[in-house]
Amino acid sequence: MTVQTPARTAAAPINTGWPGHGVLLGPMRLDCGVELDRFPIAYQTYGSLDPDRANAVMVCHALSGDQFVLDRHPMTAKSGWWEAMVGPGKAIDTNRYFVICTNVLGGCMGTLGPKEVNPATGLPYGLGFPVITIADMVRAQKLLIDHLGIAQLFCVVGGSMGGMQVLQWAVSYPEAVFAAIPIAASARHSAQNIAFDEVGRQAIMADPDWHAGDYISHGVVPHRGLAVARMAAHITYLSETALHRKFGRSLQNRTAVTYGFDADFQVESYLRHQGSTFVDRFDANSYLYITRAMDYFDLAAEHDGVLANAFRWRGRSTPVRFCVVSFSSDWLFPTAESRATVHALNAVAANVSFVEVATDKGHDAFLLDEPQFHQVIEGFLTGCAEHRGLKDRRRGAA
Amino acid sequence: MTVQTPARTAAAPINTGWPGHGVLLGPMRLDCGVELDRFPIAYQTYGSLDPDRANAVMVCHALSGDQFVLDRHPMTAKSGWWEAMVGPGKAIDTNRYFVICTNVLGGCMGTLGPKEVNPATGLPYGLGFPVITIADMVRAQKLLIDHLGIAQLFCVVGGSMGGMQVLQWAVSYPEAVFAAIPIAASARHSAQNIAFDEVGRQAIMADPDWHAGDYISHGVVPHRGLAVARMAAHITYLSETALHRKFGRSLQNRTAVTYGFDADFQVESYLRHQGSTFVDRFDANSYLYITRAMDYFDLAAEHDGVLANAFRWRGRSTPVRFCVVSFSSDWLFPTAESRATVHALNAVAANVSFVEVATDKGHDAFLLDEPQFHQVIEGFLTGCAEHRGLKDRRRGAA
Repeated sequence: MTVQTPARTAAAPINTGWPGHGVLLGPMRLDCGVELDRFPIAYQTYGSLDPDRANAVMVCHALSGDQFVLDRHPMTAKSGWWEAMVGPGKAIDTNRYFVICTNVLGGCMGTLGPKEVNPATGLPYGLGFPVITIADMVRAQKLLIDHLGIAQLFCVVGGSMGGMQVLQWAVSYPEAVFAAIPIAASARHSAQNIAFDEVGRQAIMADPDWHAGDYISHGVVPHRGLAVARMAAHITYLSETALHRKFGRSLQNRTAVTYGFDADFQVESYLRHQGSTFVDRFDANSYLYITRAMDYFDLAAEHDGVLANAFRWRGRSTPVRFCVVSFSSDWLFPTAESRATVHALNAVAANVSFVEVATDKGHDAFLLDEPQFHQVIEGFLTGCAEHRGLKDRRRGAA
Repeated sequence: MTVQTPARTAAAPINTGWPGHGVLLGPMRLDCGVELDRFPIAYQTYGSLDPDRANAVMVCHALSGDQFVLDRHPMTAKSGWWEAMVGPGKAIDTNRYFVICTNVLGGCMGTLGPKEVNPATGLPYGLGFPVITIADMVRAQKLLIDHLGIAQLFCVVGGSMGGMQVLQWAVSYPEAVFAAIPIAASARHSAQNIAFDEVGRQAIMADPDWHAGDYISHGVVPHRGLAVARMAAHITYLSETALHRKFGRSLQNRTAVTYGFDADFQVESYLRHQGSTFVDRFDANSYLYITRAMDYFDLAAEHDGVLANAFRWRGRSTPVRFCVVSFSSDWLFPTAESRATVHALNAVAANVSFVEVATDKGHDAFLLDEPQFHQVIEGFLTGCAEHRGLKDRRRGAA
């Protein structure tokens, strides 16, 4: 089976319909066996690439993220999702590093995904889109850096599903990655996480407006199902402590319960808001495909079930320098998952630092203002830059 | 507003349509202000009541439970939900104690709930049913023990929402309870638990077959929404460790992933089964009302926000003896919640034992074969029976 994609000149810049860059790349063979013809990749860059192309940092986004790391979001008008971490003078300093972020394969912000039109049918792919994997997402990113003439990324960094991509980069292309920072991630999706993903998918598929994935042709959106999926997932992004501190049992604009099913509690109102705003910016089928890619992620599986073997390279240890980060109150990707990755890296004597950041903000801490966390990233990158011999061209730098 | 219920002779036995006992009791005023006329209560009993009526144990069921503690379930044909704990020779020994369990008010197994017919309209109540509270459930149970001529329950015991009822019993009717065993419960529903309940309600309400609660009149059932609600809730009943041990990333009857949205993983298949079997036995509106009752539960709220004050009685400590039980891996009602109850009881110098059972089975441990847990319950009951002066009429007992 070959999935056809719009036939245009190879590597020609294209208009993806969104701000930022777009390019047609390919062909590329997916893990499922499908051969993709040329396909669009939408991406953003920040900072400038050094003449020796050694200062590129690939930022990998999470399930519901996108390429707009620092830009105002074109649909929600909210500020970029990682402005706490990335920018001039920030931990990932765009005065020093050239930051690239692609919308993932399967996404809905310009890169090929299930809502794009299948040239073979003239209709959106819907469920005709092939199931993709984290490795496929990374393959597409590799095509992009090849296109940009970047032989080696100085760093690959990301949280949650972004952290899965970071680990996959290090395993698939160890020579193309100098340093890797997987944050709040794991080397395989746990049974509990597969279970939560499945609840979200079932909520979407239960919505009659989903139409077996053909909702675009029907002129509708399965907004109720997608909202429920987002609500369930959103609970897992926060710690119990954070929810308690933020909302507790506080009532929403009322002094007493109403004995009804309105959102009496602030936490209900907040969740409903999370659900309803998400459906305005995200594609339900993309949600299915991307969660499936996470479920399938299991780095050890292709290495005899031994994770350490994934980090062997030419009979030695991986050349990639790792900084593995977890958050103490993250119950979706708990510290034990990161520790398992670190143990595997230690087993092959890889170069690895491991930091568990003490915070009560849960999984979402990777997106939030966490000074200790940002200091860790900045310090690790500065050390790696020295080893790599990157020039420090920041103003006032020695 | 008065909710009318079938006018029959007060306290007359009735046929609820289910095995076991039924009786019409009332009137009763609900927390929301609605006055219930006489209404049906369905209940089961096991063992026999001593002539002095001192050996009665009220078992309170959880959200999705019912009165069939030891009976084969009339719809699923599965064995009773607490056969591990209750029965001849078990921790709650029906050779010694007279066990009562009512279907909760708002339920769907014979006690008045939203699927019963509203005599005022001739139609099922649906959303016309008044919102009920845990205290209302307990009020209905108190009517039943009054009807049975039981002045004081020897013990009230239950897990999860059953444990909330236990605490409410002790607070509302301290003289009518000799001993209380709240298991895997809390004195107020947490923000995280309200959030999970809200996801379940939104899943049900998102189903077009819900018809704003009028689905019975439409001849349909919101089975997809209710299944999603059950799936999401079910994850919270298990620990991550238990899910991992039970399923891990094992595939369901296949040797490789299918690159599709079928239930590739056993955990997906298991969850789907949990969802689909639940809709066959449970009413979607009951699910809304019962989860709402849990959300509203906050014992401290009516006592100036000070939980200890809930356990003061006539200027002294509550006369009720408590055994508070939690499970180490329960993240829905974590040990910290039980400890807060214990601290409040200690603050008024109440008679309280506290046991955290070490188990990796999560919240559902209260339903499972956990020998240490059952020994705790048996020991506590035996001690209380001595204090209470209950005769030991078991065969071979001294």
